[in-house]
Amino acid sequence: MGVHGRIAEKGGAGRRLELLDTTLRDGAQARGISFSVEDKLKIVKCLDDFGIAYIEAGNPASNVKDAELFRRLAGVRLNSAKLVAFGSTRRAGAASPGGDAGLAALAGACAPYASIFGKCWDYHVREILKTSNAENLSMISESVAYLIASGKRVIFDAEHFFDGYAANPEYAMACLDAAYGAGAETLCLCDTNGGAFPLAVRGAARAAVRRFGAARIGIHCHNDGGMAVANTMVAIQAGAAHAQGTVNGYGERCGNADLCAIIANAQLKLGRRCVEDGKLQELTLLSRTVSEICNIPHDEKAPYVGANAFAHKGGMHIDAVEKSPPSFEHVDPEQVGNSRSLLMSEVSGRSNVARRVRKIAPEVTKAARIAADVAARLKQLEADGYQFEGAEASFELEIKKMLGTYRQFFELVSFKVFVGEPAVDGAGTAAWIKIRVGGQEYITAGEGEGPVHALDSAIRKSVTHFYPQIAGMKLTDYKVRVIDSDAATAAKVRVLIESTDGRDSWATVGVSSDIILASWKALVDSIEYMLMRAGAPWPGGAGEAAGSAEVGAPGPN
Amino acid sequence: MGVHGRIAEKGGAGRRLELLDTTLRDGAQARGISFSVEDKLKIVKCLDDFGIAYIEAGNPASNVKDAELFRRLAGVRLNSAKLVAFGSTRRAGAASPGGDAGLAALAGACAPYASIFGKCWDYHVREILKTSNAENLSMISESVAYLIASGKRVIFDAEHFFDGYAANPEYAMACLDAAYGAGAETLCLCDTNGGAFPLAVRGAARAAVRRFGAARIGIHCHNDGGMAVANTMVAIQAGAAHAQGTVNGYGERCGNADLCAIIANAQLKLGRRCVEDGKLQELTLLSRTVSEICNIPHDEKAPYVGANAFAHKGGMHIDAVEKSPPSFEHVDPEQVGNSRSLLMSEVSGRSNVARRVRKIAPEVTKAARIAADVAARLKQLEADGYQFEGAEASFELEIKKMLGTYRQFFELVSFKVFVGEPAVDGAGTAAWIKIRVGGQEYITAGEGEGPVHALDSAIRKSVTHFYPQIAGMKLTDYKVRVIDSDAATAAKVRVLIESTDGRDSWATVGVSSDIILASWKALVDSIEYMLMRAGAPWPGGAGEAAGSAEVGAPGPN
Repeated sequence: MGVHGRIAEKGGAGRRLELLDTTLRDGAQARGISFSVEDKLKIVKCLDDFGIAYIEAGNPASNVKDAELFRRLAGVRLNSAKLVAFGSTRRAGAASPGGDAGLAALAGACAPYASIFGKCWDYHVREILKTSNAENLSMISESVAYLIASGKRVIFDAEHFFDGYAANPEYAMACLDAAYGAGAETLCLCDTNGGAFPLAVRGAARAAVRRFGAARIGIHCHNDGGMAVANTMVAIQAGAAHAQGTVNGYGERCGNADLCAIIANAQLKLGRRCVEDGKLQELTLLSRTVSEICNIPHDEKAPYVGANAFAHKGGMHIDAVEKSPPSFEHVDPEQVGNSRSLLMSEVSGRSNVARRVRKIAPEVTKAARIAADVAARLKQLEADGYQFEGAEASFELEIKKMLGTYRQFFELVSFKVFVGEPAVDGAGTAAWIKIRVGGQEYITAGEGEGPVHALDSAIRKSVTHFYPQIAGMKLTDYKVRVIDSDAATAAKVRVLIESTDGRDSWATVGVSSDIILASWKALVDSIEYMLMRAGAPWPGGAGEAAGSAEVGAPGPN
Repeated sequence: MGVHGRIAEKGGAGRRLELLDTTLRDGAQARGISFSVEDKLKIVKCLDDFGIAYIEAGNPASNVKDAELFRRLAGVRLNSAKLVAFGSTRRAGAASPGGDAGLAALAGACAPYASIFGKCWDYHVREILKTSNAENLSMISESVAYLIASGKRVIFDAEHFFDGYAANPEYAMACLDAAYGAGAETLCLCDTNGGAFPLAVRGAARAAVRRFGAARIGIHCHNDGGMAVANTMVAIQAGAAHAQGTVNGYGERCGNADLCAIIANAQLKLGRRCVEDGKLQELTLLSRTVSEICNIPHDEKAPYVGANAFAHKGGMHIDAVEKSPPSFEHVDPEQVGNSRSLLMSEVSGRSNVARRVRKIAPEVTKAARIAADVAARLKQLEADGYQFEGAEASFELEIKKMLGTYRQFFELVSFKVFVGEPAVDGAGTAAWIKIRVGGQEYITAGEGEGPVHALDSAIRKSVTHFYPQIAGMKLTDYKVRVIDSDAATAAKVRVLIESTDGRDSWATVGVSSDIILASWKALVDSIEYMLMRAGAPWPGGAGEAAGSAEVGAPGPN
């Protein structure tokens, strides 16, 4: 019996599961996420390429950015995804849904689908809407009917359905009846506060499936109890044919159900078709790409898609995984485009290394001698504290050095950094630097908040002197991590730097027991990478004569 | 009807749920976590203070660090927690368990409890152990019996129980029988590969509860399918009386079940007693403290304990929460020591602050004027990037400054730090410092690997000159975190320093846009804290005359 990847759970194997991604709408509610219209367009394209059925792109009535997004989306051709615009039922007490600006915006948006939420918990009707249960039912049915009359297909988001069902099951069901009766295609049961338990979700979902048929029922969970993915899976097993979530689980408070885990769980464990089989192998890539666009560090312990998801550290586990991978892996990492890593072993994935090297130098194969050398060198660098996962530009430079295709654009003669407290003459910290390019030396100085900032400012000035093309480059992120911190202040630090030229961005890394030297290495890589990509001529333009100082920097005693 | 905090789910309300924390053992398998013995002792103390019933501290046979840990723990007095040493059943084919080094180490460890794992999945017995099903049963029963004969109480970790139960339920149950028959107190059902689904866990857990009684059954889940917390809750609802997990869900691959979410879910939603009611309000503090000790950024979207767990961003949600908090909160944040934040508003948890202040100055009550001032000051400091959760010594000094009970032991006149590349005369980095104590000035210098190390060495020399009692103090840990890193190299950094006098240890924090200044602040706090605790006389002993240099440091041009 195959152990990896078998269909192990009951839940409608072979049936299709429709996915709705709401990263752009509910995900955008997360603290720390702020999408530009360009970001949203990029994510729409990723989701469509991946094969997500429905993309909830935003709320065209709630802000001007989303209104612009829908205007731009009207001109975008998608492979197979259907666009969904999000909004709510009409306001309480309004004469007709036609006069409601929110509903009018949904009716006018380019999306063929409208998703509207309506209250299903009598407590909310009373305390928040401050209206009657009957009026809330009218709000639901009239709003759905209005959108359908406007030519839309309607998904009804049954807000607080599970809390409502626990408090007053008849009324919660009456809300679904109202939406269903008015023509909603999907009744999506929402755990809006995110505190529901799997067994409660199962009970309520089964009741809804019995009443409306499995094909009509959807599920939308939040993670406040840490159970959003499980609640979603339980509802799917109860029959739900439609599931909502966000990539990486981004969302308000503790986030939404993580669509990456839902997809892999449903497709690999329940045998439910979410995306085409080949596409599932792009799940890790989708997850990482969205992390990057959101500018949020990728969660490396995330199920299926984290770098650690198949990383084995315990010696006994490594032994067993080498004997038989399914012994300590619930699925084959390749199925979701991830890979195994054995953290303490000598084997440390040479085929992984070869795969990464080939991206830079396609002529290198796994069998080639060079792959072994590269693997050995990388292992040494990682043992020294380097981490290339987040620093592809440094990795590329390192590979080129090993392949002999690297050229040095400039050479450090020396630098010195001074930090003083209290600051003298307004500058607490200053750096001077002398570099050499094609036999010419150039010295300059910079100041800044802290020694790294000062050094950054000095090195940029000196290199720009020879290579004006880096003038447009700037740093966008700077991270420090202390490694083996037990050695206290003499511990090693790893510095990660992200840079951009306004169009692309790249990341570099440096390691040293001295934070200044670690930063220096990452800064140099960053500049060299930009020069390499820009195809800068070597040895660069004419510089000043050696030793000429641009700024009067303090002399070395 | 109260909506917040009601007991909403069926699951044995009122019954006790025994928690076993395995942060120090399974959590230590996480990529990026490397505990020193000091770290582990600190975490033991935190868990005991919080009221965790069982602390699985490590595997005394697997490495020298854990062996030392158990030696040190023999001298530690715990409030109520019981220590557990972890290991495995004897090797296949061994003559007797007494000759097994692992079991002997468990028998000899100071812990009254031993937790051993044994295989329960026939596939593993065949492919990994490469032995017979019968021999595996003997391994289980003989090992349990040996430990009991050695005076231990035994928890049996039924490895891969759920996969085993799915593949061969009779054999999986026979493994439990073997452990039970030999006297194991708890049979802990493990989802070792982390891919189980809630309904499958429920079915298998119910079968085990029927056979052995609820009081004997425990649950231990991993998060590879994103469902570890839910699987744990389902097993508890099926009757399990014992649950294992790690603080913040740290662990191999995708981590273990997050004990913070389990505790809050069980105590607030199922009415199961895990810790004393008052202690539950320290859950967020426990979670943050462990994050800091692990040097892993706190997961701010973590259920219950993340800064975002009760952060409302959507305008409609904020309005509703202001009308009635339970409308968009599944529990009251105060119950778990967290607080609501309305991302567009000014409100914040003063009672939390008062609780923390009272630990240092018991006379301060929530009502007192000072609590408001402290809350305002702390809010300012936190907005500036300070985080006191992992830096109690700095917090105590800060409170004393606000209460007017702080005295300054020494005063900085100036320092200067030099970093040079290439290094000259073997020293790349040096610092000099001048301090003043009771009208006397003293100047000295130090060198080191990196500017912070050099400054640390110089400040220690200068202060030791006046206060020889700090000679025995040393730094044990140094951590750097960049905050609001979008500002790149000019971003702020937070430095956390841990120090010890050989008996106690304490942590301090400093924030600045200059890493040197941030480190300086943390270093000064650390030294002042030691002097304060030691009751050093002020203004200190006689020093050299002002300006005398102990070491010939380079002069300021």
